[in-house]
Amino acid sequence: MTATAAVPAPFTRDDYAARMRRAVDAARAAGLDGLLVTPGPDLVWLTGYRPTALTERLTALVLTADREPTLLVPTLERPDAEAAEGAAAATLVDWTDGADPYAAASALLRPDGRYAVSDSAWAMHLLGLQAALPASRYHAMTARLPMLRAVKDADELARLDAAARAADATYEEILGVRFAGRRETEVAADLADLLRGFGHEQVDFTVVGSGPNGANPHHEAGERVIEPGDCVVLDFGGLMSGYGSDTSRTVCVGEPTDEVREVHEVVRQAQQAGVAAVRPGVACQEVDRAARRVIAEAGYGERFIHRTGHGIGLTTHEPPYMIEGEERPMVPGMCFSVEPGVYLPGRFGVRIEDIVTVTEDGGRRLNTTNRGLRTVA
Amino acid sequence: MTATAAVPAPFTRDDYAARMRRAVDAARAAGLDGLLVTPGPDLVWLTGYRPTALTERLTALVLTADREPTLLVPTLERPDAEAAEGAAAATLVDWTDGADPYAAASALLRPDGRYAVSDSAWAMHLLGLQAALPASRYHAMTARLPMLRAVKDADELARLDAAARAADATYEEILGVRFAGRRETEVAADLADLLRGFGHEQVDFTVVGSGPNGANPHHEAGERVIEPGDCVVLDFGGLMSGYGSDTSRTVCVGEPTDEVREVHEVVRQAQQAGVAAVRPGVACQEVDRAARRVIAEAGYGERFIHRTGHGIGLTTHEPPYMIEGEERPMVPGMCFSVEPGVYLPGRFGVRIEDIVTVTEDGGRRLNTTNRGLRTVA
Repeated sequence: MTATAAVPAPFTRDDYAARMRRAVDAARAAGLDGLLVTPGPDLVWLTGYRPTALTERLTALVLTADREPTLLVPTLERPDAEAAEGAAAATLVDWTDGADPYAAASALLRPDGRYAVSDSAWAMHLLGLQAALPASRYHAMTARLPMLRAVKDADELARLDAAARAADATYEEILGVRFAGRRETEVAADLADLLRGFGHEQVDFTVVGSGPNGANPHHEAGERVIEPGDCVVLDFGGLMSGYGSDTSRTVCVGEPTDEVREVHEVVRQAQQAGVAAVRPGVACQEVDRAARRVIAEAGYGERFIHRTGHGIGLTTHEPPYMIEGEERPMVPGMCFSVEPGVYLPGRFGVRIEDIVTVTEDGGRRLNTTNRGLRTVA
Repeated sequence: MTATAAVPAPFTRDDYAARMRRAVDAARAAGLDGLLVTPGPDLVWLTGYRPTALTERLTALVLTADREPTLLVPTLERPDAEAAEGAAAATLVDWTDGADPYAAASALLRPDGRYAVSDSAWAMHLLGLQAALPASRYHAMTARLPMLRAVKDADELARLDAAARAADATYEEILGVRFAGRRETEVAADLADLLRGFGHEQVDFTVVGSGPNGANPHHEAGERVIEPGDCVVLDFGGLMSGYGSDTSRTVCVGEPTDEVREVHEVVRQAQQAGVAAVRPGVACQEVDRAARRVIAEAGYGERFIHRTGHGIGLTTHEPPYMIEGEERPMVPGMCFSVEPGVYLPGRFGVRIEDIVTVTEDGGRRLNTTNRGLRTVA
């Protein structure tokens, strides 16, 4: 298998301008005056601009209904910002070391305005704005405009599809490598090499949780030597053409025990139930409930210790979250993971994960490798 | 030359506990009730804990005078947090997906308390706390406790010294490689290899600004082929044993012109004047003024377009900043760069940079390679 995915056409100035308009419309619909977007995935989505380093110097895209989009940047970084495709759809304003960046930003805002601000904007910058404009009010993007990037357009979906195919190809290949007698970190390195070989420009995580390590859902990969009979959780992904992949399968080194078979089957059915619950207009929490119900009914409810899924796009964790309490409805174009798991402390864990997109007809899996319990050598 | 620096002994639980106490004392002296520290260099300094990924899940160390240090972590990440050396000096409290992390954090704070918060804490988290405790007040760490990590202890200084020696060894070696006819990115790759070879675990930047590219102080390294006669700004650094290196020298490919010689000499003298201004009790801005005066008097004042320096430690940009308006005094143990430059748009640039530490007797350079104009092939 080779990396045959074509490199998608880059997003254009018009794409970015359209996204900026959508963002302003969404802000107004949410009762806000606009958005303040700092470096990170929101800024990449809106402008294509990704500063080379995240520093203490304020960079912010200000989007409001009453003026043209304005990108405030440190003077030193202006050439980098100008080189971004979407920067052409905004007015660039720079501020120089020694000047007050909050005064510069305030000049673009209403004194009593209400703005959505990027989740990961630095607290230092938010406090600076709050001090400069005491009557202004801010709301986290995820709290007020959680679905800004959640609905993917066709070009984004094509990227996510390509990333998922590369992750699936990685899984198929890893089934053929030796597990027994090798360290988790060695298999993790194989996963990383395969992801890159299949076209990923960045590998973000390569979980290899063998035996008892599989029971810690946050375990990455360690020095443990994998043993015959081990159940091994594999969970890996990264970025391809800027968009994320994320898939999990659980394999067994040689013949599984009856208990491993049973737990794996429970998780497989839970994952199937979660995917089956995907439908436009249905609350996101129903995906979590559907998967959780299967696991609870099998008696493992206490052993499923995380939410069922998370959105994916320019980042691997973003809204929508498939979690109890998320009552917002699923919308066609949303992409998220469905990844229930069962974790038996000190013994083993099982997790099965696909990225799923919402279509008019229900959920469509982007990851399509076999979800049965496969054995490895 | 080889990487001979001994690996320094790791910081202990007692080291971290002492830092936590110093931080609380500093907060009280600044009229605050305590500190809220989120993942990043402050948390590394206080606990040694560096979460494997920065996510939307709240992690915060709460330090106040009236209770034991408490580290709030997502349940999923608790095992990682427990493994950090300094975690033993704090009480761990976890919160589970679906629960309200701001309610959990609020329980550790006074409803009307005043807290310093990490500069890079997510705005989303700050807004969550402000909503949960409307009478509480927050201040950016850099605004209220800017010097928390600025004064390095002997163990930290030893790490910075070792990192500087490795950067100096890198410079000595790069003088022997070919520049003419190679791309900037190739020389940058050499710099990165050398830094790693001399013991850096991470390379953060390898600026190779040849000819006109040297006139953009933010230029990193590009596809430009270096030509005979080029003036080339080299500025490189990274992390070694967790602490930063950062040094700049400007070299010439073959014989320099009289103008390059003149500008280089102005910058060399400005850098010397900046270092000579380092003295305990003197305002940080005096370092900037001293360097700037030399450049202005030589007629290049308009061409020195950035501050003279920045602190360095667990990060390569941190307080204290050597900039007009920074009136806080230098204190023995502070470490920062002194790096004036002159940038002639479209033609060339010159920058010379050493890391300097404040001693009772004045400034001591950690970087000690020759600051004269060296030629390369």
